[in-house]
Amino acid sequence: MNKFIKKITFNKDGLVPIIVQDYVNNKVLMMAWANKTAINMTLKTNIMHYWSRSRQKLWKKGESSGNLQYLKNIYLDCDSDSILVQVIQKNNKACHTGQETCFFNEYKY
Amino acid sequence: MNKFIKKITFNKDGLVPIIVQDYVNNKVLMMAWANKTAINMTLKTNIMHYWSRSRQKLWKKGESSGNLQYLKNIYLDCDSDSILVQVIQKNNKACHTGQETCFFNEYKY
Repeated sequence: MNKFIKKITFNKDGLVPIIVQDYVNNKVLMMAWANKTAINMTLKTNIMHYWSRSRQKLWKKGESSGNLQYLKNIYLDCDSDSILVQVIQKNNKACHTGQETCFFNEYKY
Repeated sequence: MNKFIKKITFNKDGLVPIIVQDYVNNKVLMMAWANKTAINMTLKTNIMHYWSRSRQKLWKKGESSGNLQYLKNIYLDCDSDSILVQVIQKNNKACHTGQETCFFNEYKY
């Protein structure tokens, strides 16, 4: 097994949260989940793969929309249970709504 | 109940993941979890509160270390199950190791 994957502490479901940041403008684009297979595929292809919790299947992000994410940097946090990736976001659309980022709902408090 | 909290889809444990980004330099600092009480306290005080999964208690970040996080912006994602906050990080130390960010382990693949 890949030495990076060995270091990850997956949760009880076998998943790890992944924070996705735009490599170019530093915006946080989305949060998703990955299992070992998704991480293996990501490292092998350099294209982000996740685990879709709603569809319960491997999810190559952008496979149908064309809005692929190309991996630039990957980091594991201090307690090895979350991951940060920096990506080149094709078409500047990370969100399924067509927005650049999934975090477009700002709360004015 | 606060109208922001009403919109959040918490997971089965009553928690929601929170991505913490530095308001000044855009670095992703950490990922943590919050329950309703933690979010209420955060919105009320403007200081980040989380739920510590290891200690199973409300966690006012920086209460012992002094490395408080002051909330500047808060966003809910498109499917309402993860949160992004932008914070002013006191002392530029988000990580319990003393590092600026918890994501200091870069994997060179």
